[in-house]
Amino acid sequence: MNTIQIRNITKAYNGVTALDHVSFSFEFGKIYGFLGRNGAGKSTLINIIANRIFADSGEILIDDLPATENMAIHEKIFCMSEADLYDTGLKIKDHFKWIHRFYENFDLEKALKISEQFHLNTNLKFKALSKGYQSIFKLTVALSLHVPYIIFDEPVLGLDANHRELFYSLLLKEYENEERTFIIATHLIEEVANIIEEVILIDKGKLLLQGNVAALLETGYCVSGMAKDVEDYCSDKNVIDSDELGGLKIAYILGEKSAIPQGSNLQVSAMNLQKLFVKLTEKGGI
Amino acid sequence: MNTIQIRNITKAYNGVTALDHVSFSFEFGKIYGFLGRNGAGKSTLINIIANRIFADSGEILIDDLPATENMAIHEKIFCMSEADLYDTGLKIKDHFKWIHRFYENFDLEKALKISEQFHLNTNLKFKALSKGYQSIFKLTVALSLHVPYIIFDEPVLGLDANHRELFYSLLLKEYENEERTFIIATHLIEEVANIIEEVILIDKGKLLLQGNVAALLETGYCVSGMAKDVEDYCSDKNVIDSDELGGLKIAYILGEKSAIPQGSNLQVSAMNLQKLFVKLTEKGGI
Repeated sequence: MNTIQIRNITKAYNGVTALDHVSFSFEFGKIYGFLGRNGAGKSTLINIIANRIFADSGEILIDDLPATENMAIHEKIFCMSEADLYDTGLKIKDHFKWIHRFYENFDLEKALKISEQFHLNTNLKFKALSKGYQSIFKLTVALSLHVPYIIFDEPVLGLDANHRELFYSLLLKEYENEERTFIIATHLIEEVANIIEEVILIDKGKLLLQGNVAALLETGYCVSGMAKDVEDYCSDKNVIDSDELGGLKIAYILGEKSAIPQGSNLQVSAMNLQKLFVKLTEKGGI
Repeated sequence: MNTIQIRNITKAYNGVTALDHVSFSFEFGKIYGFLGRNGAGKSTLINIIANRIFADSGEILIDDLPATENMAIHEKIFCMSEADLYDTGLKIKDHFKWIHRFYENFDLEKALKISEQFHLNTNLKFKALSKGYQSIFKLTVALSLHVPYIIFDEPVLGLDANHRELFYSLLLKEYENEERTFIIATHLIEEVANIIEEVILIDKGKLLLQGNVAALLETGYCVSGMAKDVEDYCSDKNVIDSDELGGLKIAYILGEKSAIPQGSNLQVSAMNLQKLFVKLTEKGGI
């Protein structure tokens, strides 16, 4: 099967459970949002998939091969890490050369082109880069690898808004040009809501939710308008949160839409994925 | 005058101009968004205001006193830094104690309460914290100081969505309780758009724009609907960007609104501050 299968993975650090019997799959050919709060276990799972650390129990299969078989899966998957695993004294262009030797499927020309688009100076050493540019170097490597599974861990940390837009558009272009699986672990949920097709949500070391983004967003909706009108409308609804500004109010509602009263100026809009995430992970469940 | 006056500040590093004759003021009692791209000069200016580095020319006055007079302005201003200036081997609770000795206006009890709200373990050393929790420690210090001017440099770097919401709500609470100036340098523009009253936008070392957020947002608007209808409506407009999804389109327009054609299903909404920022800093000017 063309999937990354996570089977019953458990991992503890110093007696504290980081992952607790987690099972799910990343299917080939989709873009995933891999979501969870700080400390939920996302980076631990990414490091287990990347074979950087070992699970206490359970197994990972990549296209039916155990992730621990380095040689066989080497050209199948690449995991960008939030941690800085690179030799900090080496110049960026030399990093590219080494990666090119190590990965047959690394497109050096593409990496140099993407570097130019971001104005990344490849003559600088890794440690001379700002936090934002360190992220840019790491996402450039990931975007330039032609392997079936690419995992991004916090790819836009420290990037300005323009560079974040550039990253999202490059990612979509890569996806259009060549079928692959992109898995994006990020805290900027609202920004990727239009890019990702599937969500995997980890909370406190357990799988809390998985599913299609469009279907997930249909579980709720937003209503905005004059505060009084919104409150009247919401009286019998499951309101998970609301914001007020001046006399205006927006309410975030879970459940099926009921008709908007005639003559009211209430506006209905789609549920906000980030708001949904915040509420689900606050309560620890739906 | 109760202001931070930035007067004709110029600063170069190794012959590269970081700030080029920058002049503007931060007035007392407002919340500012201090915006700019990576490398625009924001952190350099913050470090000059904080007296951590020196300008080549120009001066900073804080309530009419030169920022270089450490003793007199010590209890007037605090600058949270994106860089890690803390002793990384010291426990968080001991950091709080030292800051308490150094700043008369540091509210130790508040710092411990905020730490609890974020679940920050104050028995850990700074270097044992994740990137997100290092930011949380730094913003906790800034929120617990009762001084007239507080500058946050990338306060939510690495924070998950729940913690970002908590920070914004704590900031607004502090602002309601006690009149102060909060200056927020951030790349997550859309998230602070509802919090900030004023914008200062720096680009390539120069002041590009300053003004009231509401007024700024009124310089443009968004129109969404069926792609064809949106395109027809926009034919004689200054469209700065657009997004498409399925058959739907949203266009970002600068200029005054013209009437929506009768019978059309076009929706008009407010300009998105982040989109405006991206476009202004791409072109380098309006």
